[in-house]
Amino acid sequence: MALTGTRKLLNEVIFGTDTPAGKYFDVFLIWTILFSVGLVMLASVQSWAVRHGSTFVTLEWFFTALFTVEYLTRIYCATDRRAYIFSFYGVVDLLAILPSYLALIFTGATYLMVIRLLRVLRIFRILKLVRYLRDANLLVRSLWQVRRRILVFYASVLVICIIFGSVMFIVEGPKHGFTSIPISIYWTIVTITTVGFGDITPHTPLGQTIASLTMLIGYSIIAVPTGIVTAELAHELGRDKSLARCANCGRAGHDTDSEYCKHCGYKLEDLDPPTEAS
Amino acid sequence: MALTGTRKLLNEVIFGTDTPAGKYFDVFLIWTILFSVGLVMLASVQSWAVRHGSTFVTLEWFFTALFTVEYLTRIYCATDRRAYIFSFYGVVDLLAILPSYLALIFTGATYLMVIRLLRVLRIFRILKLVRYLRDANLLVRSLWQVRRRILVFYASVLVICIIFGSVMFIVEGPKHGFTSIPISIYWTIVTITTVGFGDITPHTPLGQTIASLTMLIGYSIIAVPTGIVTAELAHELGRDKSLARCANCGRAGHDTDSEYCKHCGYKLEDLDPPTEAS
Amino acid sequence: MALTGTRKLLNEVIFGTDTPAGKYFDVFLIWTILFSVGLVMLASVQSWAVRHGSTFVTLEWFFTALFTVEYLTRIYCATDRRAYIFSFYGVVDLLAILPSYLALIFTGATYLMVIRLLRVLRIFRILKLVRYLRDANLLVRSLWQVRRRILVFYASVLVICIIFGSVMFIVEGPKHGFTSIPISIYWTIVTITTVGFGDITPHTPLGQTIASLTMLIGYSIIAVPTGIVTAELAHELGRDKSLARCANCGRAGHDTDSEYCKHCGYKLEDLDPPTEAS
Amino acid sequence: MALTGTRKLLNEVIFGTDTPAGKYFDVFLIWTILFSVGLVMLASVQSWAVRHGSTFVTLEWFFTALFTVEYLTRIYCATDRRAYIFSFYGVVDLLAILPSYLALIFTGATYLMVIRLLRVLRIFRILKLVRYLRDANLLVRSLWQVRRRILVFYASVLVICIIFGSVMFIVEGPKHGFTSIPISIYWTIVTITTVGFGDITPHTPLGQTIASLTMLIGYSIIAVPTGIVTAELAHELGRDKSLARCANCGRAGHDTDSEYCKHCGYKLEDLDPPTEAS
Repeated sequence: MALTGTRKLLNEVIFGTDTPAGKYFDVFLIWTILFSVGLVMLASVQSWAVRHGSTFVTLEWFFTALFTVEYLTRIYCATDRRAYIFSFYGVVDLLAILPSYLALIFTGATYLMVIRLLRVLRIFRILKLVRYLRDANLLVRSLWQVRRRILVFYASVLVICIIFGSVMFIVEGPKHGFTSIPISIYWTIVTITTVGFGDITPHTPLGQTIASLTMLIGYSIIAVPTGIVTAELAHELGRDKSLARCANCGRAGHDTDSEYCKHCGYKLEDLDPPTEAS
Repeated sequence: MALTGTRKLLNEVIFGTDTPAGKYFDVFLIWTILFSVGLVMLASVQSWAVRHGSTFVTLEWFFTALFTVEYLTRIYCATDRRAYIFSFYGVVDLLAILPSYLALIFTGATYLMVIRLLRVLRIFRILKLVRYLRDANLLVRSLWQVRRRILVFYASVLVICIIFGSVMFIVEGPKHGFTSIPISIYWTIVTITTVGFGDITPHTPLGQTIASLTMLIGYSIIAVPTGIVTAELAHELGRDKSLARCANCGRAGHDTDSEYCKHCGYKLEDLDPPTEAS
Repeated sequence: MALTGTRKLLNEVIFGTDTPAGKYFDVFLIWTILFSVGLVMLASVQSWAVRHGSTFVTLEWFFTALFTVEYLTRIYCATDRRAYIFSFYGVVDLLAILPSYLALIFTGATYLMVIRLLRVLRIFRILKLVRYLRDANLLVRSLWQVRRRILVFYASVLVICIIFGSVMFIVEGPKHGFTSIPISIYWTIVTITTVGFGDITPHTPLGQTIASLTMLIGYSIIAVPTGIVTAELAHELGRDKSLARCANCGRAGHDTDSEYCKHCGYKLEDLDPPTEAS
Repeated sequence: MALTGTRKLLNEVIFGTDTPAGKYFDVFLIWTILFSVGLVMLASVQSWAVRHGSTFVTLEWFFTALFTVEYLTRIYCATDRRAYIFSFYGVVDLLAILPSYLALIFTGATYLMVIRLLRVLRIFRILKLVRYLRDANLLVRSLWQVRRRILVFYASVLVICIIFGSVMFIVEGPKHGFTSIPISIYWTIVTITTVGFGDITPHTPLGQTIASLTMLIGYSIIAVPTGIVTAELAHELGRDKSLARCANCGRAGHDTDSEYCKHCGYKLEDLDPPTEAS
């Protein structure tokens, strides 16, 4: 269904990115989102909430009104209204304004405040529209390709954590902070990921030896996901270029390290992503 | 020896994964294992053990009964009974039920409890049967290929830890928590793997300088195992594809980035792993 | 504009690196910079400042005088004086001497002291002149090539941190140190980067479960920038060699693993960087 | 100079690895070294030293006698005595026995004890002789190739640490543990390498923001050395195979992923390292 008149114009500005007006709208929206997210964060600081409470409420209602108008306009000018409302970003748009209205009825403000922070997800929609898309796609595609390998890796890490955690529970025991197996497993995850909070530490020589072993294992297996992702990224990176078509002459098959089209000499940096070219 | 009648049917369901019944059995088993492992963990939490002690005992006996029936059925329907009983998973299956019976005789419940957690290893058997196998194989093969290189790396790390640990023992001494050389080496391992618990920290300027050096070394050598594994994985990844045969026409020799068989156009994602094709 | 007489001679010594005098000047300058930077650092140690206060002041004025003479000489003998003064290193050179003079007027010595530390940036100018340049160039070029991919990655990490931080704020609350959403986000960044100070740690079972999840995610996504940079570096490394020209016969197109020119047999280690050869 | 008689026999056993006697000697020596190193470590534990003091002294003299005999025999049967005594391992062999004799004269036992730990370096000599040599060589060669790139990287990290450290000193100040610029730089190194001891932590909002930035930078640049080493290792790995000669037919030029000689079908795993073949 082709849109006409005001709906078409609004659609181009709000959903599109090709017109200057559409670009200004996106930039304006990014700043509004960042500002409103920053506001929610600051409002959670006790001392600020006490001093500037009313300012926060006023600003919050200002942003809610702004996003409500935007949400209604989006529904009005969407090509397929039903599809927009139930899409991922449609729901995020609704969640961005709902908490303020719900806060009038319920009083558990803390939980609602955090839902407001989901507004930050809206930034991805805007980024999606610009040329960062291609690079994000490459990352997502690479990670998706290796999902099974990563899962096998996580399963192994979890089994290692459960076994080492149980052993540490027996060796160190509740006396040294390893009060239960879940806590011991939590400690093992903290250690194997090299985070090392230090709130629980082994104190017996045997416990410290096993802890050292855990760290050296963690140190070594940190290499595995890195290896998986790198091998896949290098592979995707190569394919990305070779499948891409020159924006000038439309021919593909360039080398990974080509910077200019080998057919017409056009700069390849502006080449179309393969998904759009095919 | 070909199995017949009930034994053949049970073998297909319990050991096999091709029939719908075999798949349902696997899914059921995974959930049973996870639930029983979760139970053992929760039972180690003091406050829960006190409140729900009898519930834990009842549920534990329920799972023990279930796994006992499964273990006996596995022995009954195995193609080679002796081979199954003494196989790795045969022993793990036995260890999963033994502690409960031993607890009737002995009272050192803590150690037995942890042996129960080995049940978690049974998950690998089920994962082994599905298509995650191929990716796990790739990881294991890569890591096996680089075992010597990783060992050389570990030997170097340990020598570095012993030398830096001894130096820190002299520089900081028992006054600042470095009470002995083993403790100093433990601290060096904690530091060089970038875990950094913070239970022992250098306090003298010289000690802090040496600690900084240790960290920068650790930061740098974290690259070595990563490099080893990545280089090997990239290599194996390439071979995996080129050795694989198309599930449709059976021909091999595809490029690493091929998604469709170059001979018949069949989607390569479902291609047989090389180990089974040859 | 070609320089003549003393200006030309000074220019060769101060800005150049080809003459023996120019090399001695560079080595002398590196040591002077390192020594004066070390001086500023030591002067910030309370106990040293009290004991050797006057020595520090004397030495500081000595270095200021030295750098002032150098700065004025640089202006005098620069090929394009205006360009030098407003160049990055021109400003750094000025900032290296300004604080000492400003300290005569203002008394906020602490801030001025730190500006002096910017002297350390001057080291890069000297490194730039020697053969380390080519390797630094390779690194910078690789990082620049992947800037968009790194940015997409950082945006994702920040959104993950905001969401996990907010959830931890609700789960753990001010009672366990998560006093506000910004603090919770700070904690999430500390955890996801595997730093793990341990000044704030989760104490509730749910909080520890979410923290474990955060760590495992951090552990996994640490692979992404590594993968991005490695894939690009491997690519640049290959191109660097293939574009480089032999220092003897001037021909290019060598293989990545060539050590000798395939045209004349000259050792390629001394080959010109591609940027200078073209 | 060719050795004869007893000297030749001893030389083969002590320095060589080809004869069965030479292999047994190496294995015996590794265990002796590990045992004596373990002894020195345990002797540093206060409670053990008090209880088993005389046992430690007796065992220490036993090992000293053993290593003294070995050292003198090595001098006796070395092909070039002067070269052996002043070689790296000759000095390490001497340092392994000297402390015990010096302890008879001087009483500063702690420092001498640590010198004994240098015995652990002797393990490398033995590892050097077996087939682990080839893999160690590959690692060392790769790291040597990238020495300049790693140095440029370290220079950048240090400059970043100096600048961030100074800024943190001003922002947080002595009140929150950042008592001087060197301490602040120490904290920055602890943070940027993701060690995070937690003995010093930022407490002001601005300090925590800068700390977050430091961590995200550290998180990102950890990718750089990894990328450098991986790219080089992948490159060396490829060359290692292609330069190697088949142990059966002596021909080279195999593909990186070849497992059998393409000329005669001999298993390539046993192929000679390129350094010895040429």
